[in-house]
Amino acid sequence: MADVRMKGFKNRLKFDEVFKVIDSIIKPLAPEKVSLDSSLGRILYEDITSGVNVPYFDRSAVDGYAVKAEDTYGASLYNPLHLTVVGESCAGKKKLHIKKGEAVRIMTGGMMPDGADSCIMAEYTEEKDMILSIHKPLSIHENVSLVGEDIKKGSLILPKGRVIRPPDIGVLASVQKKEVTVSRKPRISLIITGSELASIGETPKDGKIIDSNSHLLTGLIQDSSALITSTKIIPDDYEKIKNAILSSDADILLVTGGTSCGKKDYAPLIVSEIGKLLVHGVAMKPGGPFGLGIISEKPVFLLPGNPLAVCVIYDFFVSYALGQMQGAKNETRAASGTLTKKVPSSAGRTDIYRVFYHDDLVDPQRAGGASILSSMVRSNAYLVIPENIEGYEEGEKVQVRLFR
Amino acid sequence: MADVRMKGFKNRLKFDEVFKVIDSIIKPLAPEKVSLDSSLGRILYEDITSGVNVPYFDRSAVDGYAVKAEDTYGASLYNPLHLTVVGESCAGKKKLHIKKGEAVRIMTGGMMPDGADSCIMAEYTEEKDMILSIHKPLSIHENVSLVGEDIKKGSLILPKGRVIRPPDIGVLASVQKKEVTVSRKPRISLIITGSELASIGETPKDGKIIDSNSHLLTGLIQDSSALITSTKIIPDDYEKIKNAILSSDADILLVTGGTSCGKKDYAPLIVSEIGKLLVHGVAMKPGGPFGLGIISEKPVFLLPGNPLAVCVIYDFFVSYALGQMQGAKNETRAASGTLTKKVPSSAGRTDIYRVFYHDDLVDPQRAGGASILSSMVRSNAYLVIPENIEGYEEGEKVQVRLFR
Repeated sequence: MADVRMKGFKNRLKFDEVFKVIDSIIKPLAPEKVSLDSSLGRILYEDITSGVNVPYFDRSAVDGYAVKAEDTYGASLYNPLHLTVVGESCAGKKKLHIKKGEAVRIMTGGMMPDGADSCIMAEYTEEKDMILSIHKPLSIHENVSLVGEDIKKGSLILPKGRVIRPPDIGVLASVQKKEVTVSRKPRISLIITGSELASIGETPKDGKIIDSNSHLLTGLIQDSSALITSTKIIPDDYEKIKNAILSSDADILLVTGGTSCGKKDYAPLIVSEIGKLLVHGVAMKPGGPFGLGIISEKPVFLLPGNPLAVCVIYDFFVSYALGQMQGAKNETRAASGTLTKKVPSSAGRTDIYRVFYHDDLVDPQRAGGASILSSMVRSNAYLVIPENIEGYEEGEKVQVRLFR
Repeated sequence: MADVRMKGFKNRLKFDEVFKVIDSIIKPLAPEKVSLDSSLGRILYEDITSGVNVPYFDRSAVDGYAVKAEDTYGASLYNPLHLTVVGESCAGKKKLHIKKGEAVRIMTGGMMPDGADSCIMAEYTEEKDMILSIHKPLSIHENVSLVGEDIKKGSLILPKGRVIRPPDIGVLASVQKKEVTVSRKPRISLIITGSELASIGETPKDGKIIDSNSHLLTGLIQDSSALITSTKIIPDDYEKIKNAILSSDADILLVTGGTSCGKKDYAPLIVSEIGKLLVHGVAMKPGGPFGLGIISEKPVFLLPGNPLAVCVIYDFFVSYALGQMQGAKNETRAASGTLTKKVPSSAGRTDIYRVFYHDDLVDPQRAGGASILSSMVRSNAYLVIPENIEGYEEGEKVQVRLFR
């Protein structure tokens, strides 16, 4: 019990350095094809270029009439010009043709007839007995979307690494992608350790506590592009933890734990014995007792047992690793606002505050005890205070990182 | 074709008024119980109060020793005081007891022994042969989390209407909620209309275009707490659209469409015939040709066929309605920044720009053609310019609404 670890970490890694360690051990996952309708949130494994022009025909941008612009020159409310209506542009029917002095009815998106070069909005016309009176002159291509105006054939639509959002799906449909190649989802093993853990429904006593981390992580992972392959809840037992780690067939392991009974923290020991322990202790709060290693080329994340640290470590390190495994380009989730309170921070340590960002204001939400998640519940963003800064003053402008 | 609708809407409703109409027709959905692990993104139908104290015992906030504070008064590095170590606090074992002059080893989260009132960090101690040297005085309750410090029995944890996020799941677990009562998810019928529509895989010709709206809406709805019960793609045919509307058993109908062949827009007509058409035409861009009605108490949303309008109408009106049906309290998704370009807007109309918000800057993304989704793809937020404002200048501070 009174071993060196109990007295704190000798050398804590800097917060920023952890990302470099992650970069050094992450291996990209293989691609897979998924249908467009199940691609939301997945990460593109290929550049998407369009094989088609959108639109592939000149189309009207208004409800009205397709005409020759030259037939409208000089038209006004006091000097209407007159054209003959020769038909309607109709999706699925053969393309029409107009000659000088003729017009074709057309709706927004309708295919321009041959010979027409502009469209007049119905508001500036009167139609009676197939004769159209025009009150306004047009210029060539006025109110017409030309071939390829939305998307040009051969152009890059979405780059590799893009996290697919709903509008992307609309665009992918319009360029006729029925399926897309995305990175396979990382498979995650959860190993929740702690002899003190009881399950919901049990009545905990003698210092036992309810395991919340398995549920918390389930929620966090559901919000990510990733899958849980197994969740094991294990007492502080060297052999049992080692077996759980060795028997995992996932791409990445998350081990949480744990307040033990004067025994060693087994997980870092096991990782260093059967793999390589690359990080143990980070100069950050919360989450300082974080560890990261690699066993048989699989990253193993060691998360402190307190749920607040689990949230922070997941949101900063694990989600970064999951994104990198899938080749994700970083998303911007930064917003800026004015601090409503002073936030102190220790030099030499990265402090991560939970804040409620609203109306251009950044309200820090303080947590009382170590394991309090309630500051997360009240917050919608993180405020990261880098190690070289000793806090921010009330009224200072700061950048926050919004929760997903 | 040359009917009144082709000439635009006589009376366009104001953007803000649409929300009031939605409020007037939305009926709350029934509750259902779901397991904690499947509650992410669902909306609480009940106030959650805690039936327990968390922690339910006084616990240590540090790794070290539980002691009596009075035994430490006067201790320093030059004047260490000595205590006898009488055991270790162990989850699952009976609670220990200390007398004056005694200490118990304890880890963070460990149960305080009876008689102890404070904890000393291991860093300020030396232990040898069960004798503990203490280098620092403590005050009463120092480094101790008292019963109920995280969560007090009977206190409100999460309010009715809360959209459940991952940290909430952690907190719910810690107060032993195995399941929660949430609103049932709204069931949605999608009716995609347009004789011009072809499916992905077909080679569209003669002005036909690929249906992207069914896929776009599938993505948008997957990102919401809602379910699609059916998706029908229907030509511009009065009877077929009417039958599709009448045969829906969903809670809410979304009808998109559509550029027709000089025929009327059937959906508004059908809604006004067999139900009540409450909104037809809104003073907004994009999305102006929006309609909203009610048939047999079910809201029917009529979305213009262009995908950009579908996105905007969904994100502002449909998602609001889905939230209200589930009793959701509004989430704050506003951020503020400085405009990098002037954005013009017509008085009397609400203009909704797509913007890329980053580093405190708001970059408007202009769309060329009416149906261009690419401005959505390049954006991560909306900038709403109210009808009484004629745009914003470059350098102005504006609020944006972040995409989900």
